[in-house]
Amino acid sequence: MNAHHSASTRALDLRHGRVDLSFGAGGRAMAQLVAELFVRAFANDYLARGDDGAVLPAPAPGERLVVSTDAHVVSPLFFPGGDIGSLSVHGTVNDLAVMGARPLYLTAGFILEEGFPLAELARIVDSMAAAARAAGVHVVAGDTKVVEQGKGDGVFITTAGIGALPAGRDPGGARARPGDAVLVSGAIGEHGMAILAQREALAFESTIVSDSAPLNGLVEALYDAVPAAAIRVLRDPTRGGLATTLNEIAAQSGVGIELEKKTIPVAPQVRAACELLGLDPLYVANEGKLVAVCAAEAADALLAAMRAHPLGAQAACIGTVTADPQRFVQIRTGFGGRRMVDWLAGEQLPRIC
Amino acid sequence: MNAHHSASTRALDLRHGRVDLSFGAGGRAMAQLVAELFVRAFANDYLARGDDGAVLPAPAPGERLVVSTDAHVVSPLFFPGGDIGSLSVHGTVNDLAVMGARPLYLTAGFILEEGFPLAELARIVDSMAAAARAAGVHVVAGDTKVVEQGKGDGVFITTAGIGALPAGRDPGGARARPGDAVLVSGAIGEHGMAILAQREALAFESTIVSDSAPLNGLVEALYDAVPAAAIRVLRDPTRGGLATTLNEIAAQSGVGIELEKKTIPVAPQVRAACELLGLDPLYVANEGKLVAVCAAEAADALLAAMRAHPLGAQAACIGTVTADPQRFVQIRTGFGGRRMVDWLAGEQLPRIC
Repeated sequence: MNAHHSASTRALDLRHGRVDLSFGAGGRAMAQLVAELFVRAFANDYLARGDDGAVLPAPAPGERLVVSTDAHVVSPLFFPGGDIGSLSVHGTVNDLAVMGARPLYLTAGFILEEGFPLAELARIVDSMAAAARAAGVHVVAGDTKVVEQGKGDGVFITTAGIGALPAGRDPGGARARPGDAVLVSGAIGEHGMAILAQREALAFESTIVSDSAPLNGLVEALYDAVPAAAIRVLRDPTRGGLATTLNEIAAQSGVGIELEKKTIPVAPQVRAACELLGLDPLYVANEGKLVAVCAAEAADALLAAMRAHPLGAQAACIGTVTADPQRFVQIRTGFGGRRMVDWLAGEQLPRIC
Repeated sequence: MNAHHSASTRALDLRHGRVDLSFGAGGRAMAQLVAELFVRAFANDYLARGDDGAVLPAPAPGERLVVSTDAHVVSPLFFPGGDIGSLSVHGTVNDLAVMGARPLYLTAGFILEEGFPLAELARIVDSMAAAARAAGVHVVAGDTKVVEQGKGDGVFITTAGIGALPAGRDPGGARARPGDAVLVSGAIGEHGMAILAQREALAFESTIVSDSAPLNGLVEALYDAVPAAAIRVLRDPTRGGLATTLNEIAAQSGVGIELEKKTIPVAPQVRAACELLGLDPLYVANEGKLVAVCAAEAADALLAAMRAHPLGAQAACIGTVTADPQRFVQIRTGFGGRRMVDWLAGEQLPRIC
C-alpha cells in the first residue's frame, strides 16, 4: 500500500512526460493531472472543491443568463499571438460579449491524444488561465478525455461560457433596420492569415500576428457610450469572416447591407498575403474584432468609444443597412463599381479556430 | 447568383452524404447543417434564434446555479443501450443531478471527422434530442468543427450543463461523516461491460446492455423522501467505477468506508464477463447509477425511495462510513476476510465514455 501510494503520488513530470491513456481513465493518474495541472493553473474555489460540478451564485436581480459554447480544433496549436488555450477562452468570452452579456464563468472539456507532451499541455493550460484572468472569467468546471494516438490531433478544447445579461440589453442578429450604420472595431483577417502563414510556413517580411483577444471590455465601453437600444447587433466575425457575418445579419434581419470598400481596414501585410494566396480578406477569420450595427445617430459616439479602447484604435464605419427583400450584401468598389458579397461557400481555411 | 443559391440550398443528403470540411468552415454549408440537422432535432426557441449564444431566464429566487461539463469520446459510437448522443446528455445531466441540482439547459460542441456518414450523425443527434427530452433539458447552444480524416475518430461531443440548485440542498464529496450509510441505486458495471463486450466482439449468452440513463428524476425522489441535510454525498460512479468514486469521497471527507461485498449488486452476466476478462466490477464504469452517502437514520427511507423508482429497483445499502485518518476504503468478503479497495490505477478501459 505505502509503496504504491508513494510511487503514484510522485509529481507529474511536466517537463518530459507525455499524455497516456490513464490520464483519461478516471483513476489516480487523472486525479493527479487535474490537481497538479488544471486546479493549480485555474486556481479558484469552484474547481478546488473537487465535485462533479460548480455551484455558482445566482445573477443579480433583473439579469438574465447567457450561455454559449465553442469547440476548438485550431491547427497548429501555437501561433503568433496565441495558442489553442487562449483562443478557447477568447472564442467563448466573445460569443457571450456579443450577446451583450458580461462573461463570468467558463467550463473546459479537453480531448487529448495519447503521447502529447505534458510540457505543451501545461503551456496551453497556463495560457488559458492567463487569458481567463485577463478577461475576468473563472474556469469553474472541466473534464479530460484521452484518445489513442492517431485518433485525435494533440489537443481539442471545448469551452462553454455563462454570462449575465444586464436589463435593457438585447442585441441580436434579427434587429438590424434600414438606415442603421455598420461599424467594425479594427483591421480584418489577421487571425486567419496568422494561422495560414504559420501552417504553410510562409515567410513574409513581417510576421502576421493573430488578433485573438477578449472583446468583453470593448463591449462594455460601447454600452457606456450610448443608450442600449441604439446597439442593434453585435457579432465577432470569426469563421467565414466579415462577409459571412454580414450575410447572417442580413438574412436574420431581412435587410440588405451596403459596404464601402475603401473604409474597411485591412493591414498591409494581410492584404499582401491575401493577394499572394488568392484570398479575399472579407472571408478570413478574426478572433478579436467586433462588428456593430447601430442606429445611425449613435454611430459617431460608438466609433469614438471604440477608438478610445485599446482593441478599437482602427475602428471604422464601413457601411449601412438598406431595405432589400433579397437580403443582399453588396460592396462599392473604388471606381463606382458594386459587387455582391456572398456567404463563404466551401472551406477556405479548415481548422482556423 | 441564382444558380449558386439554388444549388447550395438543396437539402443535405442525410442518407448518403458525408461530413466534409466545409461543414466546419462557418459558411453556408455549416449554416445548412445547423439548420437542417441540429436546430430541427433540438427544436427550441433558444437555438432557433440563431445568435452566438442563448438568453435564458434567471433561476428562481433563492436558487443557485450549478454548471458541469463532460467530453465524450466513447468507442464504439453505438452500443447496446445507447450511443454517444444519449451518453453525452446523460453524462452531463447526471453530473448536475448529483450536485443536487435540477438540470435545465445543455450546450453541445461537436468535433466531426471528415468523411463521417451524415446518416450516422443524424442518428446520433436524434438520439441526443430524445435523451434531452426524456431528461427534461433543452440543448440551447452548440458548435460544430470538422477535422481532417485521421485527425479525429468519427464524432466527439462535449456537453456542458446548467442546473438550478434549490435552497437547502448542498451535497458534496466532503460531507460524509463516520456512521453514515452508503447506498447504491442498482447493479454495477453494466455500462463498461456493454462497451467492452461490443468493442471486443465478445459473445455472451445474453447481451450486456449499458445502464446509461438520466438520474435527475431519481435524485428528486430522494429529496422528496428525507430532509435535504440527511443526504451528504451524491455521486454517479462513472470512469474508475464504484471503487474510485468511494475513494474520492473518502479522500474529500477525510473518512474511511467499509463495504460489505455480498450486498453490492452485480448482474450475473456482468460478473461472468468480468471473471472471463480478469476485471473487478468495482472498477467498471456505470452511466445510470447513483451512490448516496446519507445519515444512518435516513437510509431506510432513501432505500425505499430508490426502490420505488424505475431506475432504483435493485438499490442496496452496501456499507458504512468509518472514522479513519488513513481514508481507506475496505471491503469485507464472504469468509470474514477484508481487503483494501484502492483507486483505479492505470487504464482499465479507455474511451468508455
